[in-house]
Amino acid sequence: MIGITEIGSYIPSKRVSNIERKEQFDTDEDFIYNKIGVSQVAVKEADEDTSDLAVKAFQNLEKKITIHRNEIEAVILITQNPNSNIPHSSALIHKALDLPESVACFDISLGCSGFVYGLSVIKSFMEVNGMTKGLLFTSDPYSKIIDPKDKNTALLFGDAASVSYLTDNPVYTIGNFTFGTIGKESSNLTCNKNILSMNGRGIFNFAAKYIPVDIKNLLSKSNLNIQDIDKFIFHQGSKYIIDTLIKRTGIDDGKVIFDIEDYGNTVSSSIPIILERILHDHNNKYIFISGFGVGLSWSSNILINNKLK
Amino acid sequence: MIGITEIGSYIPSKRVSNIERKEQFDTDEDFIYNKIGVSQVAVKEADEDTSDLAVKAFQNLEKKITIHRNEIEAVILITQNPNSNIPHSSALIHKALDLPESVACFDISLGCSGFVYGLSVIKSFMEVNGMTKGLLFTSDPYSKIIDPKDKNTALLFGDAASVSYLTDNPVYTIGNFTFGTIGKESSNLTCNKNILSMNGRGIFNFAAKYIPVDIKNLLSKSNLNIQDIDKFIFHQGSKYIIDTLIKRTGIDDGKVIFDIEDYGNTVSSSIPIILERILHDHNNKYIFISGFGVGLSWSSNILINNKLK
Repeated sequence: MIGITEIGSYIPSKRVSNIERKEQFDTDEDFIYNKIGVSQVAVKEADEDTSDLAVKAFQNLEKKITIHRNEIEAVILITQNPNSNIPHSSALIHKALDLPESVACFDISLGCSGFVYGLSVIKSFMEVNGMTKGLLFTSDPYSKIIDPKDKNTALLFGDAASVSYLTDNPVYTIGNFTFGTIGKESSNLTCNKNILSMNGRGIFNFAAKYIPVDIKNLLSKSNLNIQDIDKFIFHQGSKYIIDTLIKRTGIDDGKVIFDIEDYGNTVSSSIPIILERILHDHNNKYIFISGFGVGLSWSSNILINNKLK
Repeated sequence: MIGITEIGSYIPSKRVSNIERKEQFDTDEDFIYNKIGVSQVAVKEADEDTSDLAVKAFQNLEKKITIHRNEIEAVILITQNPNSNIPHSSALIHKALDLPESVACFDISLGCSGFVYGLSVIKSFMEVNGMTKGLLFTSDPYSKIIDPKDKNTALLFGDAASVSYLTDNPVYTIGNFTFGTIGKESSNLTCNKNILSMNGRGIFNFAAKYIPVDIKNLLSKSNLNIQDIDKFIFHQGSKYIIDTLIKRTGIDDGKVIFDIEDYGNTVSSSIPIILERILHDHNNKYIFISGFGVGLSWSSNILINNKLK
């Protein structure tokens, strides 16, 4: 059974401070620390493109685990900001890492729900095709499309990338999934003429309405109670949405991780970056992950510690 | 087991004649009919976007088979020319078709190999997630990115869309796959600043080198001989590449379909549009499909008639 063996990530070192921009945006530290929970955002260099961030995440992965590149069979990249639309950026990653000719490569276009969807796609694709080693990348640098004068987006989103190494000898196996789409509300988060536009209130209402119900549904489908879950990693949208989910679900807030103050909401990289930090903690049996955003779309999964199951 | 139950397609009625442009492009009818094999290309209306073409393909599908929209569980769109990059266009299809909230929707970024990859992704995604009804769309209108003065692309590519209805009661089941990527040759087909650029010779050499070997590999993996295959549907790249594949493989040319003179190379829609026409022929047991192009990327599969197997 295919699951997650290791995760690498890359967060560019350059930061733009929200504290220094608070007058410009007519806001205050209460908003910055308590509402969005982001005091500075990570921004890539101008000459770093989407595939470059992904390759740097892979280099960090290789510092932790030996990867035989000639054994890789599948590469999936989650992005809505590829280097360009043709070719798919996963082919550029394939080139940069000098992977074998037999590798299946494709990009998936999804936003903040993308890592969780991507886990399902790569797991099922590998299992049905008899593959045992694959890479799931996320790299969606919103700095490419953010209007630096737009308070709704400029203070919130940061650049980053991740790569999850999927094998048949995993640290975490992948349980049941839930999926959902509300296409008729997709106009809440759009990109036109290369400028991102977000109705933050619309996204908030969507998450606050659908995710608590989805948590119940997935627990029920998995025959688990909310108390059985050791950690919850929700998409790191903002402090306010995480606090709201805690309130509406009654989850013990000590089990919910929110930790993006230093670099921002990194879209589909937000969950794997947190997951990487706790992947080898021995006390967690079940980790609940849930991504939600662009589409509007969501997906949730319960990861199961392969040593404790 | 998930397979193909029905296919719908949409080719816009507007045509641009290559015969009328032959002086402008300093070419002749021999090149038009015998080399590219495209005498006119289909072009969408200016107010038709990628998701609109897909929805029209779905409307044509519904003329052939009753679809209960509330039973659909997965929607995948293959495109590299979405309406915009955010949101994914499959969410716009979800909205237009008023599909249920529980549908998993995402786009896959692949070009001419996209339909075959997409079949593997949707089959495995549906099987592993216990789904029984899904829609695989292709819609990649290159007229959005073609320089009308570029002979390499303007005479070749046409607009179209398709939708394949995947269920657990299929007409064709889906056999083994092969996949491949040559990322280091991806610069042969790119889009920069919204203009497509193609090195036709590079793409031709790629297909002529890799696809004959791939055909042998997939036949061997499937324990079939080349004579066992009833029909071959290669990506309809150009007449010249199809003729070359026939020559290099020794396939009986009566088994190879090439039929795009009236509308052009429709990228990821090229295979399903041909497949739709022969889906209910009772004499074909095995149909070999192979897509190749952007990436550079390829994938092949052998479809198996569910009544004759």
